Amino acid sequence: MSVIDPFDDTYFMKRAMQEAEAAYEKGEIPIGAIIVIKNQIIARSHNLTETLNDVTAHAEMQAITAAANYLGGKYLIDCTLYVTIEPCQMCAGALFWSQISNIVYGARDEQRGCISMNTQLHPKTIMKGGVMADEASQLLKHFFIEKRNLN
Amino acid sequence: MSVIDPFDDTYFMKRAMQEAEAAYEKGEIPIGAIIVIKNQIIARSHNLTETLNDVTAHAEMQAITAAANYLGGKYLIDCTLYVTIEPCQMCAGALFWSQISNIVYGARDEQRGCISMNTQLHPKTIMKGGVMADEASQLLKHFFIEKRNLN
Repeated sequence: MSVIDPFDDTYFMKRAMQEAEAAYEKGEIPIGAIIVIKNQIIARSHNLTETLNDVTAHAEMQAITAAANYLGGKYLIDCTLYVTIEPCQMCAGALFWSQISNIVYGARDEQRGCISMNTQLHPKTIMKGGVMADEASQLLKHFFIEKRNLN
Repeated sequence: MSVIDPFDDTYFMKRAMQEAEAAYEKGEIPIGAIIVIKNQIIARSHNLTETLNDVTAHAEMQAITAAANYLGGKYLIDCTLYVTIEPCQMCAGALFWSQISNIVYGARDEQRGCISMNTQLHPKTIMKGGVMADEASQLLKHFFIEKRNLN
């Protein structure tokens, strides 16, 4: 008999996607993130660069700050970040300092993502991608098509 | 007759050094930053990662947010960031998104700075270093020597 783990990557990425959808509703580039420790969500956030007029207000940056507040310490050891789109070099740079254990992203960002930009992750960090990639990139595509039609 | 410009790089870097000294007094890694537009200082900040328990609280990150708040827009066109130590990949990544016109740093960070880490700056951004480099690196060295002696 096989036991299904309800707390798999898809379970948590769905929560990050809900955050991305909340960003979409606000007219923000729809990217969402959550941070999890021992199957518990300790931070949830979405991109707010337009609302806050602040290029640093990416979903991941807010999630890192919120998770550190929750934990009462600045290192995110044993934590996993779920983010709908591959982090940029700013966010990957912040994740480097946080020493986070795991990063799981949805879709690649071929142009501005940390992989293409060669941003260095912390040696203790394991990153993997492709979880709900289609949903994440579809939402982003819809956003930009809609934005183009409005202008 | 030559006219001396009182608002040169050293003038502004001295203000950034004052911020670094404020960080030192708080037991923070002593790095300070200011952002200037048309010879006017619109943001001043220093590293607060220990005080805020937050790896994202580098001097530059706070300065970017403060300057954008002041300007009422997220792009730092025509602005110059003065920072006592070369920015890391997180801060350089944030500066990329801000499209800031100029970055002037004091001392190099050979190990974790954006030059060694190959972080990409915005094509519109010009970066130069070496302004009050000795003062900036001396303050940093003093901090780490003192910290080592206390432990």
